[in-house]
Amino acid sequence: MKSNKAIELLAKMTLEEKIDQLMQLATPFFKGASDNGKITGPMVHLKVDVKNVQNAGSVLGASGAENIISIQKKHLEENRLGIPLLFMSDVVHGYKTIFPIPLAIGCSWNIDLAEQSAKIAAKEAAVSGIHVTFAPMVDLVRDPRWGRVMESTGEDPFLNSMFAKAQVKGFQGKDLKTNLDHIAACVKHFAGYGAAEGGRDYNTVNMSDRELHENYLPPFKNAINAGVKMIMSSFNIVDGIPATANKYLMRNILREQWGFDGVIISDWGAVKELISHGVASNEREAALKALEAGTDIEMMTHCYTENLKNLVESGELDESLIDEAVIRILQLKDDLGLFENPYRGADIKREQKVVMSNSHRKAARELAAESCVLLKNEKNVLPLEPMQKIALIGPFVDSGDILGQWSWLGSTDDAVTIAAGLSKKVKKNEVLISKGSDITMITEDLKKQAVETAKLADVIVMAVGEHSSMSGEAGSRSNIQLPEAQLELLKAISTVGKPIVTVLFNGRPLDLHGVIEHSDALLEAWYPGTEGGNAIGDILFGDQNPSGKLTMSFPYSAGQIPVYYNHYNTGRPKGAPDAQVRYVSQYLDSPNDPLFPFGFGLSYTTFQYSNLKLSKNQITKTDKLIVSFNVKNTGSVSGKEIVQLYISDTVGEVVRPVKELKGFKKIELDSNEEQTIYFELSEVDLRYFHSNLAYKSDPGTFIVSVGSSSTEVIELSFQLIPTKEDQ
Amino acid sequence: MKSNKAIELLAKMTLEEKIDQLMQLATPFFKGASDNGKITGPMVHLKVDVKNVQNAGSVLGASGAENIISIQKKHLEENRLGIPLLFMSDVVHGYKTIFPIPLAIGCSWNIDLAEQSAKIAAKEAAVSGIHVTFAPMVDLVRDPRWGRVMESTGEDPFLNSMFAKAQVKGFQGKDLKTNLDHIAACVKHFAGYGAAEGGRDYNTVNMSDRELHENYLPPFKNAINAGVKMIMSSFNIVDGIPATANKYLMRNILREQWGFDGVIISDWGAVKELISHGVASNEREAALKALEAGTDIEMMTHCYTENLKNLVESGELDESLIDEAVIRILQLKDDLGLFENPYRGADIKREQKVVMSNSHRKAARELAAESCVLLKNEKNVLPLEPMQKIALIGPFVDSGDILGQWSWLGSTDDAVTIAAGLSKKVKKNEVLISKGSDITMITEDLKKQAVETAKLADVIVMAVGEHSSMSGEAGSRSNIQLPEAQLELLKAISTVGKPIVTVLFNGRPLDLHGVIEHSDALLEAWYPGTEGGNAIGDILFGDQNPSGKLTMSFPYSAGQIPVYYNHYNTGRPKGAPDAQVRYVSQYLDSPNDPLFPFGFGLSYTTFQYSNLKLSKNQITKTDKLIVSFNVKNTGSVSGKEIVQLYISDTVGEVVRPVKELKGFKKIELDSNEEQTIYFELSEVDLRYFHSNLAYKSDPGTFIVSVGSSSTEVIELSFQLIPTKEDQ
Repeated sequence: MKSNKAIELLAKMTLEEKIDQLMQLATPFFKGASDNGKITGPMVHLKVDVKNVQNAGSVLGASGAENIISIQKKHLEENRLGIPLLFMSDVVHGYKTIFPIPLAIGCSWNIDLAEQSAKIAAKEAAVSGIHVTFAPMVDLVRDPRWGRVMESTGEDPFLNSMFAKAQVKGFQGKDLKTNLDHIAACVKHFAGYGAAEGGRDYNTVNMSDRELHENYLPPFKNAINAGVKMIMSSFNIVDGIPATANKYLMRNILREQWGFDGVIISDWGAVKELISHGVASNEREAALKALEAGTDIEMMTHCYTENLKNLVESGELDESLIDEAVIRILQLKDDLGLFENPYRGADIKREQKVVMSNSHRKAARELAAESCVLLKNEKNVLPLEPMQKIALIGPFVDSGDILGQWSWLGSTDDAVTIAAGLSKKVKKNEVLISKGSDITMITEDLKKQAVETAKLADVIVMAVGEHSSMSGEAGSRSNIQLPEAQLELLKAISTVGKPIVTVLFNGRPLDLHGVIEHSDALLEAWYPGTEGGNAIGDILFGDQNPSGKLTMSFPYSAGQIPVYYNHYNTGRPKGAPDAQVRYVSQYLDSPNDPLFPFGFGLSYTTFQYSNLKLSKNQITKTDKLIVSFNVKNTGSVSGKEIVQLYISDTVGEVVRPVKELKGFKKIELDSNEEQTIYFELSEVDLRYFHSNLAYKSDPGTFIVSVGSSSTEVIELSFQLIPTKEDQ
Repeated sequence: MKSNKAIELLAKMTLEEKIDQLMQLATPFFKGASDNGKITGPMVHLKVDVKNVQNAGSVLGASGAENIISIQKKHLEENRLGIPLLFMSDVVHGYKTIFPIPLAIGCSWNIDLAEQSAKIAAKEAAVSGIHVTFAPMVDLVRDPRWGRVMESTGEDPFLNSMFAKAQVKGFQGKDLKTNLDHIAACVKHFAGYGAAEGGRDYNTVNMSDRELHENYLPPFKNAINAGVKMIMSSFNIVDGIPATANKYLMRNILREQWGFDGVIISDWGAVKELISHGVASNEREAALKALEAGTDIEMMTHCYTENLKNLVESGELDESLIDEAVIRILQLKDDLGLFENPYRGADIKREQKVVMSNSHRKAARELAAESCVLLKNEKNVLPLEPMQKIALIGPFVDSGDILGQWSWLGSTDDAVTIAAGLSKKVKKNEVLISKGSDITMITEDLKKQAVETAKLADVIVMAVGEHSSMSGEAGSRSNIQLPEAQLELLKAISTVGKPIVTVLFNGRPLDLHGVIEHSDALLEAWYPGTEGGNAIGDILFGDQNPSGKLTMSFPYSAGQIPVYYNHYNTGRPKGAPDAQVRYVSQYLDSPNDPLFPFGFGLSYTTFQYSNLKLSKNQITKTDKLIVSFNVKNTGSVSGKEIVQLYISDTVGEVVRPVKELKGFKKIELDSNEEQTIYFELSEVDLRYFHSNLAYKSDPGTFIVSVGSSSTEVIELSFQLIPTKEDQ
């Protein structure tokens, strides 16, 4: 339903004004910008003139209340109809208070904290003048070579859908017009981007339509159900057609099937990239294909402004398609209240107080601690004791490069390093610090110093990982081990014979050869954000009990990729009762299972699952099934546990995943405390996409598994039986 | 068109007899078999009774004229209607005279020799009593982790189609009824098996229907056009449905669209495996699904014999579907002339002369030499001189394990080892031999001996590789380097400082780290078959000039998989004129291109390409385009060159491959000889599958590239212009 304001404005606009409304440019094009509207670099190639800029619809990458107010003010002075600009930026895992990377947030399995982190990011961004963020990213990821896995919450469509909804709610709040602490969200990248071939960014994506529906689309649908205002199309092709020109994806699925009425924006330069892809012979054809397919806003290229008018005049393009796109953009401006208040939440004074407030840092610290995943803890080397003499070694000891990519305004200077974090925890002792190596370089001197330092300590904490630029956009690696220099350092330190606690800073599941065998304890800290060092200190010294669990499998090696928990069975599964020795689906030199599976993570305490019960053995389409079981903290300290529920559909019309996550809860139990957990299932949870894309269930046997990871479970089965109407 | 004989027989058969005709069992079930019909091992689980066996339609894996005659004789005594058995076996790259593995045959690019090898295999098999071979395998392969890449001719749909046709012609000849030296062929595996996820055998396959049509189906269609009698379905799922139960693949594509009227057989046990896949809840449902989908013969399980009768009686299955399957089998028997002569070519006396004849070995030697690919030859260390003192080192020096998988009746004792082959070439000197290591194990002693041997030589030939069981069915590896022991050996030998010629025996493209840097020359010999040692000797000493070229790319590492020449462009191609440094489709730590590309291979001479001309700049749908160019042998010895022609469609309705092979010729030129080469192209060669699966061309610009590999080319462009009818 479009507002009168939008309809009225559209009626007054010239064709040129409409077309420019579809254009998004970066700040250097705009008068009043803090960079004085100076256009340099590749952007000078953009053939936009003063008039285009005056009519422009939106701005990319502006920040700061003063700057944004200034640009908007100048713009309103010059725009004929006084249509305010939309300011859009990449506020992905925090604005200036940086939260852990999304993959880490996923590992917290804490939907509430995830929502809160988006809310805080929105609050900081809104007061700084931003209207729309290019988040959340909800791409399903199965290939750790791909650098953008750090932006996703992981390999599960159900979990990703939950996080998609939480983040949209956190960013957008309930009403953008009245609540100026929130901003509009833009879910991305539509669609299939996570399946880039070979994990190489921007690369070919090919899959069946059913696979797309089953695994890649659900979080987008959930974001739409949560009211997301915008969708960004992806760089990749989907079955041969770039998403930016993909009528089936945008017109058919998004608009017709799902009824999405918000704005669709291209990714950076993606309209013009239709030429590189080889589906358009020139910019004119690119503009036609993108608009016809449903791309409302062209980001950072000028195919629309240069060509749409001529395309309308020649009769090749129906102006109504332009009108539709414009009105969606105007509607978003209206939803944000920009026609009443074009500066919206931008507030130079309040900005000082809100951005990087103590409460925001506290929230970042809490989420960072919950995002860490304890992968190994032999001989209970963790938690550390404050009286132990600790050697802190590795290229990350003093590094602020723990924010991860897409932390745009986050400052590494504001980041609490691991050295700073640990130092606060030790009262009497000092932490002995030695870098030992750079990220990718080591010298004999550095190594020797580190070994000498290690000898003086009771326990060694290794702070190792990837430079943040080794993941993120265009950050694909074919080798996903730690860089050689650090493997050499770790090996050298291991010869000292002291207990080693390895803390990993990285943006993807790694091949841990050369790390795990030299580590008595292993903590995956990801890029934990601004409060990283404090959060790691909390975990290592037991002030926080680790509670994160992996949402993306850790492969044994790059040669085992892809490996994910919710795979399909084969006709010759390994380990079946009648399986042969050779002729089963396996590698000769590697297990089929990952090194660490989905849902796995250790705690300083232990949890026991028992007494699994189903309220019925059979259900019909109208019944509810209550799953109950007990979880007991059988260790000596309190701790949080992520309780997971999976189902397996034993026979399908198409093959079904060996397990599918259908529920989870993060609970906290004191030592010896026991709690009964309840989940409710119904026929709706048993539906899947059939070969004809019908989303429905089939009667039959289902297995319910509950437990502490995707592999450590107890299970029972039940039947879905047809009702009389089905038969 | 079915014969009267088949129709008459069907009319006389009971339902039970029909159903048993669909069953294929191994020899131990049959009286008269050389193993005395003794059923052992997993086969005792097969619930078949004496009556089933008496009515059985075909036999799996029998060999030898005496044995087959004996089984057939006993069978005809007991079968009520006197219907002879069909004898089917895996005669893949030779019967007893073993040719190189199919991937190697592909690298010969010699269609005539490939056809001849199939003809020889058929002749040996036919005289031994076999009627049908489970070959050729024509699966497109892009993942060297998959062990079965050794059975394929490579990564190109056009090349695979040419080899598919040649092999079908070679096996089947012109008329199976009158020419008893030929046998029926069975093209496999339908379809998509080469795309097993992670290169793990039998694993999930998912791709769009268009991708399947574009890359995976063409060789099957070409085999059908060449008259192939049988098709085997694949083990894998295709978009969620196992091929064995895939109505779309078998009924829709094979039967309706392509009009294939031959027999469709399941792979070993695949009907029952529908249960493991999770698309059938029991054997009854598996039988129903497989037959309804179009599987005529059930190989080695008993779902049909146990359940089809009951399914017909209950009204769930239409008996006409059984009739259709039976008549196709009877028709094949009639096509083979079995009703007139149930023993067909089986001839105990002639078998002695035909099998492993000198002329067959000679053909094997010739094809093996043409299949070797010279990957490196620095300082012209090759060819060797007979007067040089040669050290031959490595686990393959004396090994007959050079036949490769699917060489069933090939004997490693009959194989000419590399030691034997080289020894024949050196008149005065002896070859110094030291094993140095086993395939996967090395000792200090072995290594030391090898180093000492190396020191005595002028040049070192390293014979290294994979055990043949490391490839082939269920032979998937996650690490595709040479086994560690051999890398250690090679490194040790390299310290001696003598020129090293490395000869590789293996079934897949390898990651050559640790090999290439220690080798001055590198010869990919694959598994060269019975005459391997002789062929390698011919190459190494220059009696044959190497002329093979790769038909599957060699990746830099497992982390770069998949890498293949005919990939699609991205929107951000690396190396484009306006490409950024970071934001392009690439790995941070690896090139995008493979180490050795499709079409690459060195010679002892050099070839120069020049004077590329197109007969027209523009063609219409009815025109022919003549491509001509000169190739000159600019070296000092004569040699064979594989001349390759590629096209690139610059703009498509869907993205098009960066290059597509559309023609090739293997020519021979004397030193300084120059030849003008002609290819003819027309609109038909420019067609591709559009998003709606329409197979057609679009007007536009095309680039023609010709050269010595997929990357070393000279090029020109032309236009396809619309005719008046198109507009």
